Amino acid sequence: MPVIQGVRLATCAAGIRYPGRIDLLFALFDPGTEVAGVLTQSKTASAPVEWCRRHLAHGQARALVVNSGNSNAFTGSKGRETVRVTAQAAAAAAGCLEADVYIASTGVIGEPLDPDKITARLPALARDAQDDAFEPAARAIMTTDTFPKLATCEARIDGVTVTINGMAKGAGMIAPDMATMLGFIFTDAAIEAEALSALVTPTADATFNAVTIDGDTSTSDTLLVFTTGHAASRGAPRIARGDDPRLADFRTALLEVMRDLALQIVKDGEGATKFVAIRVTGAESDAAARTIARSIANSPLVKTAFAGEDPNWGRIVMAVGKAGEAADRDKLAIWFGDIAVARDGEVAPTYRETQGAAYMKNAELAVRVDVGVGAGEATVWTCDLTHGYVSINADYRS
Amino acid sequence: MPVIQGVRLATCAAGIRYPGRIDLLFALFDPGTEVAGVLTQSKTASAPVEWCRRHLAHGQARALVVNSGNSNAFTGSKGRETVRVTAQAAAAAAGCLEADVYIASTGVIGEPLDPDKITARLPALARDAQDDAFEPAARAIMTTDTFPKLATCEARIDGVTVTINGMAKGAGMIAPDMATMLGFIFTDAAIEAEALSALVTPTADATFNAVTIDGDTSTSDTLLVFTTGHAASRGAPRIARGDDPRLADFRTALLEVMRDLALQIVKDGEGATKFVAIRVTGAESDAAARTIARSIANSPLVKTAFAGEDPNWGRIVMAVGKAGEAADRDKLAIWFGDIAVARDGEVAPTYRETQGAAYMKNAELAVRVDVGVGAGEATVWTCDLTHGYVSINADYRS
Repeated sequence: MPVIQGVRLATCAAGIRYPGRIDLLFALFDPGTEVAGVLTQSKTASAPVEWCRRHLAHGQARALVVNSGNSNAFTGSKGRETVRVTAQAAAAAAGCLEADVYIASTGVIGEPLDPDKITARLPALARDAQDDAFEPAARAIMTTDTFPKLATCEARIDGVTVTINGMAKGAGMIAPDMATMLGFIFTDAAIEAEALSALVTPTADATFNAVTIDGDTSTSDTLLVFTTGHAASRGAPRIARGDDPRLADFRTALLEVMRDLALQIVKDGEGATKFVAIRVTGAESDAAARTIARSIANSPLVKTAFAGEDPNWGRIVMAVGKAGEAADRDKLAIWFGDIAVARDGEVAPTYRETQGAAYMKNAELAVRVDVGVGAGEATVWTCDLTHGYVSINADYRS
Repeated sequence: MPVIQGVRLATCAAGIRYPGRIDLLFALFDPGTEVAGVLTQSKTASAPVEWCRRHLAHGQARALVVNSGNSNAFTGSKGRETVRVTAQAAAAAAGCLEADVYIASTGVIGEPLDPDKITARLPALARDAQDDAFEPAARAIMTTDTFPKLATCEARIDGVTVTINGMAKGAGMIAPDMATMLGFIFTDAAIEAEALSALVTPTADATFNAVTIDGDTSTSDTLLVFTTGHAASRGAPRIARGDDPRLADFRTALLEVMRDLALQIVKDGEGATKFVAIRVTGAESDAAARTIARSIANSPLVKTAFAGEDPNWGRIVMAVGKAGEAADRDKLAIWFGDIAVARDGEVAPTYRETQGAAYMKNAELAVRVDVGVGAGEATVWTCDLTHGYVSINADYRS
């Protein structure tokens, strides 16, 4: 991973849940760094999510503290106090305001998180932080992820090259931990928080919000994008509006980094053996297409069929039907890859079950469904539902 | 099962999917029988469902044809023709109008259903129909159900005893068959179709619509309630309005029969080892409580925790949060049976994990969640998500 000028990172094993496991990340940003983000829609959001929601409003950032092992969710007033004390210590260590500190936690829910384990380590981490520590940082935020998730891309803004680095942790869940998606993106581009926010929200919709492992939503999902602005010293313009045409290439690169991370999350889904792209076309609107695609992607019957390499397109019809969005049953068409499976509301005359069965042997599957009522379209990425998922989530107790 | 005067039933093995399996039910009703029902909300409803929806409008019934093995769903114009031809033959065999014939099909989706296999058997079935054949009838409509589902109850209407018999098939699904819930209720009460419909809809909401195996919705779900009116000859009044106070006892008995059948369906859920009642109180409305209860009941993380006998209340918090309905995180309370697990938005001070773990060993579990914002409440029944479910739905191909 390349360096992002203005970003320094440090990690350590703070003993939050398991002794000896790297579980704390402290990221420090040069003055002038701006931030935008997307946070969980959960009605039972964690204390760190509430903190970030409040401070994203002013768009300034100087530090980010992330711990794994304990999500500090459903921890009442104690949880809020832990966040406050952590922000205070991080501000002291980074030499900034508390309001410029962002916090994310992932791990067990409902257990008090002792802030001392974190605050005691922050001064040393601030001192030791390096600009080339993205790989250990991506490891520090993992819970049951089987590999660290990193992506990088360059973009040109008005002729000046900027770099975008990203890291994420996925929907690895192990009892009693939670599925939590954390994503942190860093760039040296000079983009003001409001413009950045206008970029990030639709990009998150098309990437992190378009993947689903099991339809469950964490109390802690957090995506934060930090821009240090150092590229301005190399002549990059300072961008104040999200619709500035000079952002075209950056927008594409940001989408690329976030999609790359989102797909890594799906591929590391618990127990997953298949990676499946579900594309819905012909819906009343893009939102309707998204709803239908999610209904297919989250259906246990569809997901177990993928696991069993069963070309069970009847279950896809069922999932379209239960989505509640307009669909013309008598125009419905389904493809597995390039194979036309159903059209005009019945099995395609050319389709043979042996074709579908052979296609299902692939590790990466593409399902397309046209529901025949409009021009709305959406893609959602998911994985299969396997014995491995049940084992990870049912068989083992913490 | 007692006899219902005016109802005769016959079954046979018509070879619809598997040779030698009893897969066809023909029920005949005396003239004057009225009918009401509730049908799937799926946007890709099957041809038989469309037929029933059209003919329920007039509320008269003389015959019911049910086959298992093929759902005649997603079969295009051929499927509609199969229904028409079946209704024609059933009308001829029963000596009634086609419009008085109701049809339900369950089984494989997307394969043409040859009507000849059914129509050829109807004359003999009409001749041989018996008034005491409820048990074989309940077997004929099974797919992967492991036991036939029957219930009966008596009620008094204005001092006259009437009988309600019911049968159902459950959410047994095996590749590539579909989860389909069929329920048929028969009574000798004299209740006109419109009044009956006013009774049946809310009762279905509180029973069949309050169970969930995996959140999937069939293209074929059908509930029909037939009233022969024979009790009028014993002095029962003919009821024309759903709010007639003389229906109080009947309403309770109907609820009892339908709840009994619905719970049998949950207990026979694929791979289920736990039966779980999820009760949500303190919601903004009953509808909001239902949404939250379903979010909990359908969460794969919650369901796998039940399978693993893991008192993982954090996942319940997560499922409350993702439901999207108002909930006060800082007033949220959770009980496992009588054990207070969480209150005021954090773990209850008296709660010990060993208590929860011991409770989870029970085969029947009761979870209550109070979300602290209002007076809305609802109960949903579900089962756990086990290796057995994955095996049934992923490992075996038809």
